[in-house]
Amino acid sequence: MSAERFEKKKTIDLRKKHIGPSCKIFFSHDPIKIVQAKGQYMYDEKGQRYLDCINNVAHVGHCHPDVVKAGAQQMELLNTNSRFLHDNLVLYAQRLQATLPDKLSVCYFVNSGSEANDLALRLAWQYTGNKDIITLDNAYHGHVSSLIDISPYKFHQSSDAEQNQYVHVAPSPDVYRGKYRGEHLDPATAYADEVKDMVQRVHKKGGKIAAFIAESLQSCGGQVIPPQGYFQQVAQHVREAGGIFIADEVQVGFGRVGTHFWAFQLQGEDFVPDIVTMGKPIGNGHPMSCVVTTKEVAEAFMSSGMEYFNTFGGNPVSCAIGMAVLDVIVKEDLQGNALRVGRYLTNLLEKQKEKHPLVGDIRGRGLFVGLELVKDRLKLTPATAEAQEVIYRLKEQYILLSADGPHRNVLKFKPPMCFTTEDADLVVDKIDHVLTGIGKVIFIIPEEGHFVAKPAVMQSTGTQKVHTNYIMFFKVTKHWGKTLNLAIVLHCHY
Amino acid sequence: MSAERFEKKKTIDLRKKHIGPSCKIFFSHDPIKIVQAKGQYMYDEKGQRYLDCINNVAHVGHCHPDVVKAGAQQMELLNTNSRFLHDNLVLYAQRLQATLPDKLSVCYFVNSGSEANDLALRLAWQYTGNKDIITLDNAYHGHVSSLIDISPYKFHQSSDAEQNQYVHVAPSPDVYRGKYRGEHLDPATAYADEVKDMVQRVHKKGGKIAAFIAESLQSCGGQVIPPQGYFQQVAQHVREAGGIFIADEVQVGFGRVGTHFWAFQLQGEDFVPDIVTMGKPIGNGHPMSCVVTTKEVAEAFMSSGMEYFNTFGGNPVSCAIGMAVLDVIVKEDLQGNALRVGRYLTNLLEKQKEKHPLVGDIRGRGLFVGLELVKDRLKLTPATAEAQEVIYRLKEQYILLSADGPHRNVLKFKPPMCFTTEDADLVVDKIDHVLTGIGKVIFIIPEEGHFVAKPAVMQSTGTQKVHTNYIMFFKVTKHWGKTLNLAIVLHCHY
Repeated sequence: MSAERFEKKKTIDLRKKHIGPSCKIFFSHDPIKIVQAKGQYMYDEKGQRYLDCINNVAHVGHCHPDVVKAGAQQMELLNTNSRFLHDNLVLYAQRLQATLPDKLSVCYFVNSGSEANDLALRLAWQYTGNKDIITLDNAYHGHVSSLIDISPYKFHQSSDAEQNQYVHVAPSPDVYRGKYRGEHLDPATAYADEVKDMVQRVHKKGGKIAAFIAESLQSCGGQVIPPQGYFQQVAQHVREAGGIFIADEVQVGFGRVGTHFWAFQLQGEDFVPDIVTMGKPIGNGHPMSCVVTTKEVAEAFMSSGMEYFNTFGGNPVSCAIGMAVLDVIVKEDLQGNALRVGRYLTNLLEKQKEKHPLVGDIRGRGLFVGLELVKDRLKLTPATAEAQEVIYRLKEQYILLSADGPHRNVLKFKPPMCFTTEDADLVVDKIDHVLTGIGKVIFIIPEEGHFVAKPAVMQSTGTQKVHTNYIMFFKVTKHWGKTLNLAIVLHCHY
Repeated sequence: MSAERFEKKKTIDLRKKHIGPSCKIFFSHDPIKIVQAKGQYMYDEKGQRYLDCINNVAHVGHCHPDVVKAGAQQMELLNTNSRFLHDNLVLYAQRLQATLPDKLSVCYFVNSGSEANDLALRLAWQYTGNKDIITLDNAYHGHVSSLIDISPYKFHQSSDAEQNQYVHVAPSPDVYRGKYRGEHLDPATAYADEVKDMVQRVHKKGGKIAAFIAESLQSCGGQVIPPQGYFQQVAQHVREAGGIFIADEVQVGFGRVGTHFWAFQLQGEDFVPDIVTMGKPIGNGHPMSCVVTTKEVAEAFMSSGMEYFNTFGGNPVSCAIGMAVLDVIVKEDLQGNALRVGRYLTNLLEKQKEKHPLVGDIRGRGLFVGLELVKDRLKLTPATAEAQEVIYRLKEQYILLSADGPHRNVLKFKPPMCFTTEDADLVVDKIDHVLTGIGKVIFIIPEEGHFVAKPAVMQSTGTQKVHTNYIMFFKVTKHWGKTLNLAIVLHCHY
């Protein structure tokens, strides 16, 4: 199979014609065509190499040969559903179980993080007999309808979304920008008490809590690290109300946090969720995922009398691939690498914070790191345009990074786990360069106000080149001839 | 990789420990361990060959080498998400589009039939601005929570399921057992008028129709073939009410019906759904699926402002596999084979109907065929136990068939599309043998009433051996010493 069949322009045209326009592409005004990838590198149609800092799905490295081999061999032999006995299914379940606390012993294999989180809700509803769900602000748990309902990150995007009456949004336990911050004496208790109060409000209205769901570390929500002890306290409040705790590890599981295999374990050994959902990295890109729960929850689900069948879930190929991923994590000590390289990266970024006022916060665990850009370190004014600028400039330097969070001002690092200290040096060096240049753009403007310009009329200093491919919208807030802090809104979607 | 790692008993024990008990296995009291498969054959751990009459997912034949090769080659090269340009994505979308009416031109790639149908609902809700969904009785559309709501096949299984207030269940257009039968002059209009009346009832209650959803041929619902013209009339009523028509092709698409590539096309060229969902056979077992809709629906979905991102959907590996499946269908004329072998099989089964009073109805299109067993051809009393008996006896003869429908009395044929006339001869011969034996079991019983017995106390004639591994529950309705028509309920789940 040739790596490229069409000229890039033809690919773009066909995509516009045949792919749903809600499916956004990176760098929409000059998208990247990737034809090959290996380890932490991706290659475009001209052979240009990109350093990948964002694809946490390619967990053990793009196209890892052990994973490819396991998948290809099993595809040749058998790929069928779980209504037949197969050793891969039970062996893989046993191996996943071995990474978890003992009481999390029962697996349901499904095809995506969305299927996993939806099933987690079904398990919670059936086990508790209750309906109400508490979710966190800015949370994203998946794209099926039940999960849009519990994903403020999504339903806030829609102009006409109604909030589901059974869904209640607690504050995100963000100690940088949230309701209780770093200077608070006990943010874990303060945030957990918000959930406690919410439970009481729900009860007063006649509701009953089925579950609290949270990513163990919030990803799209802005790389948020909840304070230690928060989950324990939330779990206590929620369980006292008859509900259960669902830890969503779809983005952050499988050793990424370095010190532990699962991110919920960062909270301490005394914390065990009732349900853990897994996804993205589990199959290094193969469509698969898993829900793990307790015997009690599983038995309650069965007692409804309703069978659960998932056509592709737990097929022998998916399980073979899943086991190969676990093997590579151990064999290449990728969890250890995440810890070491993650610390190295975080240290480098901390130095950027000392150097650039725009860098408001560095936070992370292992190879899950966020860098939050702010215009003012006291007011925490989000530097959204600057974050977009960094992403675009890095792309021009063949580095893939993304910005996320409610204000899209948090640079997200979640690279393949084979990321090296050299890769960290490279990306931080480039970020340094871009941050040095930002805010020094000299621009000839007719008057204060909104202004649309082709890049040709713009000059830049401090960066290697100006953008050439997209129209920019500037909001100019200072006067003629002065050095400007431009609010640049690129007309593109992330 | 060795095909078997554990003794069968160990596999069973591990499965009981680690796999959700709601995930049922075929022949639960003596399940089959399958370690390999090729074409229309599956092989157990002892090398015993089974003829597979049920796995419509292995559409072009288990482990087809062209499909395996396409998947393995692309896995080596690149497997990433659709935020990057890739030719496989657009080429595959273009090829799928070419099989459909022109106006169905926009694709969303997802990972399972469930994800596809959930997205179809989201598209319908957004496009119409309405909430109410009309579904058919006995329908099954998937396992995520929004689809359990529209799947009477599932929610009737649960003791405590509440019907969602926005979901309305119209009669299944089953001309054999349904409300309007074969002798009716115009069942298409009669069933469509039921939908029309339902629309009016919904409107009276203040509801508004978002969509009508139906499998193009109902599968789990009992291999139901809707009368021609039904979909056109339903679409008219639903569109007049502001709703759209979703054709679920997850079970029946990709040439299975023989005369057409899509089962909705059986209704005539004047029928075009607004959304088509695909699944199971699309990737020959690889977890993938697709929603195809019109430009208008896609644009309305985008206008909400909410992005749609599916991590694994439309990845280069899935698309490569999808294209290989389309290639094999053409190269091996599998649609033509489905037509020819399907007709041959249906003719053979018609002869069984002449021979065995238990056979109430034979219906099907191509290699999608149902054989409905009844105890009485006038009353249509479902021969549920007899259907289970046939399935179990065939399994002992190494033939995999299943029984489904609301009364679990419809034998379902949906084999890999490489099924041959010889395979048809074999399975029908075995069915003939089993049907000849059924109802001739001699049994010594103490008295009329319910009775639980170990098979050891049972003798059989007309079949090769008695069951030895499971407890049976008999409801005895005749007296001591007589030849009985036993209602056998096996204590197992399908």
